[in-house]
Amino acid sequence: MKITYDLKHVDKNTKARYGFLNTNHGSFETPMFMAVGTQATVKTLSPEELKKVNSAVILCNTYHLWLRPGEDVIAKAGGLHRFMNYDGPILTDSGGFQVFSLVKNKKKEITEEGVHFKSHLDGANLFLTPEKSIQIQNKLDSDIAMSFDECPPASASYEYLKNSIERTLRWAKRGKDAHQNENQSLFGIVQGGAYSDLRSFSAKQTVALNFDGYSIGGVANDGESKEDMYAAIDYSIPYLPEDKPRYLMGVGDPIDIIEGVIRGVDMFDCVLPTRLARHGNAFTRYGKINIRNAQYKEDFEPIEKDCDCYACKHYTKAYIRHLIVANETFGARLLSIHNIRFLISLMEELRKAIQEDTILEYRKDFIRKYNSGGKCEKDQKNNL
Amino acid sequence: MKITYDLKHVDKNTKARYGFLNTNHGSFETPMFMAVGTQATVKTLSPEELKKVNSAVILCNTYHLWLRPGEDVIAKAGGLHRFMNYDGPILTDSGGFQVFSLVKNKKKEITEEGVHFKSHLDGANLFLTPEKSIQIQNKLDSDIAMSFDECPPASASYEYLKNSIERTLRWAKRGKDAHQNENQSLFGIVQGGAYSDLRSFSAKQTVALNFDGYSIGGVANDGESKEDMYAAIDYSIPYLPEDKPRYLMGVGDPIDIIEGVIRGVDMFDCVLPTRLARHGNAFTRYGKINIRNAQYKEDFEPIEKDCDCYACKHYTKAYIRHLIVANETFGARLLSIHNIRFLISLMEELRKAIQEDTILEYRKDFIRKYNSGGKCEKDQKNNL
Repeated sequence: MKITYDLKHVDKNTKARYGFLNTNHGSFETPMFMAVGTQATVKTLSPEELKKVNSAVILCNTYHLWLRPGEDVIAKAGGLHRFMNYDGPILTDSGGFQVFSLVKNKKKEITEEGVHFKSHLDGANLFLTPEKSIQIQNKLDSDIAMSFDECPPASASYEYLKNSIERTLRWAKRGKDAHQNENQSLFGIVQGGAYSDLRSFSAKQTVALNFDGYSIGGVANDGESKEDMYAAIDYSIPYLPEDKPRYLMGVGDPIDIIEGVIRGVDMFDCVLPTRLARHGNAFTRYGKINIRNAQYKEDFEPIEKDCDCYACKHYTKAYIRHLIVANETFGARLLSIHNIRFLISLMEELRKAIQEDTILEYRKDFIRKYNSGGKCEKDQKNNL
Repeated sequence: MKITYDLKHVDKNTKARYGFLNTNHGSFETPMFMAVGTQATVKTLSPEELKKVNSAVILCNTYHLWLRPGEDVIAKAGGLHRFMNYDGPILTDSGGFQVFSLVKNKKKEITEEGVHFKSHLDGANLFLTPEKSIQIQNKLDSDIAMSFDECPPASASYEYLKNSIERTLRWAKRGKDAHQNENQSLFGIVQGGAYSDLRSFSAKQTVALNFDGYSIGGVANDGESKEDMYAAIDYSIPYLPEDKPRYLMGVGDPIDIIEGVIRGVDMFDCVLPTRLARHGNAFTRYGKINIRNAQYKEDFEPIEKDCDCYACKHYTKAYIRHLIVANETFGARLLSIHNIRFLISLMEELRKAIQEDTILEYRKDFIRKYNSGGKCEKDQKNNL
């Protein structure tokens, strides 16, 4: 069975939408943030811990799993869900982003057929094509697969982008023709930088291929401005059908998520919450804090008093600081739980605000607090 | 309240004893293995995960906590239990072993007053005395503290050891006099290498100081033979009172645990299960295996079919191998759960065997299987 999307409500002042995405591994409400399980594990966490923070769907990386342990091992295990003991919905990317970002400092050659490049692990020569990406994802047996696209750098010229989106469209068609897993849905990807005409062309032509959902790509590259990101969304969304989910790839900053939701996006993913955690950073309503800071050495309060996550219910900033300073994995684990819960809570509040037609007020309040500066103690006391 | 020990049964053929140790944070059956939470966390694991494998008591390292975050931070948090959110019994060591092992390649000077040495973290000059060790442990507020002793290397001469145990006795007396936490029990430590007369002298004189329990130290140094370890236990045990617990420090090899239990030991600790886990090793009834081995790449069975731990109930060797090979922390976490559960299960079986007076048969069966060589597949199939 393919996924289905039920649109329940559109905010009266914006394009923000509340709905349900139904998969073979359960339904979840949208807008939703997806935690990233790059190598078939959301770093440091168990599937049970993800469920406890109401994480409803995860993303895994086709490129990494192709290299290790290999898609055939996962197929023999019975697919990705059984391999990693995760029975919720899983989305896989196409490998394209990793090919164009992880290997950016090494030689790669883009041809009409596909991309020649070297493994970031051992330098081995690899060749990824639209068909190969889909075949790998078919074997991984994720609920939702992505078309193989080119992810041009933020610095790419108009001419380069124009040729690129045309090739990405040809790749999308080839991948769709190669797709053979009846229980797996396939998304097309809209590219085109921050150019209105390229985004609309890419969106219309991709929609013409009739995918199960649509992604907006090319917005999470290094060097891309917020304005370009929001413009890319604004230029793409009007051409996407109302009855299919929309996924903004690689975005996890809380304010960017809110801006994306307001512009009509349903799904987000990012390594940010777990990566920040490993570096000792925690999301709070008053901005990010770094728990390594000396001010937390004898701070026996939780990261956020009102947070309902396991880390905040049982542990103090002083303890988590100690764990991070002492390189103890349990510290990254506690911060990962908190940071993912933070974004999932944000999505819960956004869904509520959409249903109540109050998302513009929500954005205003959230941004005012969040940008109050990390120097959150004073703001918290004043309960801004 | 100090701890109490209830002796319930002594095996009819050996010195193995079954009993209960009662602490302010609950009672547990002995013999018992203690997982090690060096820096106020059992590496990669939560307190809840420790409880699920029936881990009943943990050990934390005074030396590490003195350096980071400092005993005053932990005292301000309300003690070690509250600091780390662990409500079961906690034992702290004295710091002696770390001073004599971690800093072994750097200059240290042993005086009658204490030990001058350099921090393994930043090279800062430090001075640890029997009084200081006890004061730190008083502030940590563990259930059981250890006397500060010298841990001479396995290569130490008879003359050196003789002087060392006499100084350790003077240190034990000074530490006992300095001890001021009424809710914390204090153990004395028997040293003396593999010399019968030194062990008996050390044991008798330590017991004369009337501690709440007795440790046998100096058996887990590099270069010590199994025979020396077993001899050290045999030479010490006869002089220890029946109504106090006996703790063999730093021992976690399954066969060594069995040999210690048979010789009358009640408590063991070791970093082995978690350290092995981080290097991809798993205990099995048929010897240790390294999950990185290529033979496990497509092995979709659990580490041990009969094991009741979370890792064995939900994950395959192929998946755990993938996580370890890909440097994913969740792999070390799953193997840590399994390895600790393995030793805790061993203790459960030993306690049952003691109560049934069958520990000699248990030892024979266990060692035959365990030493069958890591090439366990054949043995497992034959159900040896």
